Amino acid sequence: MEPFHLNFRHQINGENLIIAVAQDYDTGEVLMVAYMNQEAVKKTFKTGLAHYWSTSRKRIWLKGESSGHLQKIISIKVDCDLDSILLQVKQIGGACHEGYYSCFFREISLDEGHEVKIVGDKVFEPKKIRRREIINGTISTKFPTSD
Amino acid sequence: MEPFHLNFRHQINGENLIIAVAQDYDTGEVLMVAYMNQEAVKKTFKTGLAHYWSTSRKRIWLKGESSGHLQKIISIKVDCDLDSILLQVKQIGGACHEGYYSCFFREISLDEGHEVKIVGDKVFEPKKIRRREIINGTISTKFPTSD
Repeated sequence: MEPFHLNFRHQINGENLIIAVAQDYDTGEVLMVAYMNQEAVKKTFKTGLAHYWSTSRKRIWLKGESSGHLQKIISIKVDCDLDSILLQVKQIGGACHEGYYSCFFREISLDEGHEVKIVGDKVFEPKKIRRREIINGTISTKFPTSD
Repeated sequence: MEPFHLNFRHQINGENLIIAVAQDYDTGEVLMVAYMNQEAVKKTFKTGLAHYWSTSRKRIWLKGESSGHLQKIISIKVDCDLDSILLQVKQIGGACHEGYYSCFFREISLDEGHEVKIVGDKVFEPKKIRRREIINGTISTKFPTSD
């Protein structure tokens, strides 16, 4: 496929993966972290939309496939070890299935109490978005779990 | 240890891990991605310096322990699934053992050729920094591999 070689060294449930970090291209805000297998990388490059590998659902997953909250790729960087990539994206809606713009919407205090505080922006109400999934040709609708 | 609970769900070589992303607090530049086990998280909170779990060396690793290129923690955020954390840091020197400020110093073109171009800033010459590692009480010195 490519003149560059990624190192899919992260083995989870027998799948060979790289780590992908998505970052807002304009603001630099880190949006989420997920895995990609080789096919997800290919689809991301081919379509210009972020695709990941879901280790729980064991399938490729177009980010926003049910919510519409797509990540349009602006730039892709690779790290020194070739086992992680950085997707700089334009995020439609919000990255987090809990309705926040970034999945990293909670800060943990460095003080001994380690209190957790919500610091991120909520941009949509997750219960209002019903998931649509096509499983074996049948459309099932349920509330969001992870997308 | 803490009122928050992390989900060390990433199992690599029998170790239960979370993913950690380090980001420059001031500029938002993503510096590197690594894993942490529970002990690395505790040490990071306790010392205010980023500690990771090396899956290749199978030990806890203070970032910059040999190079001096420490990451001073300014803020820690956790994601919705509690299996990844975002360290916002002040990076001393450079994050990458190849001498760049960020490990993500190469951009992959979105064009079909997928050319790879160096876009990051080189901030030190890695061959001039010799590694010092203390193994069983003995200091060994070698050139950098990954730190």
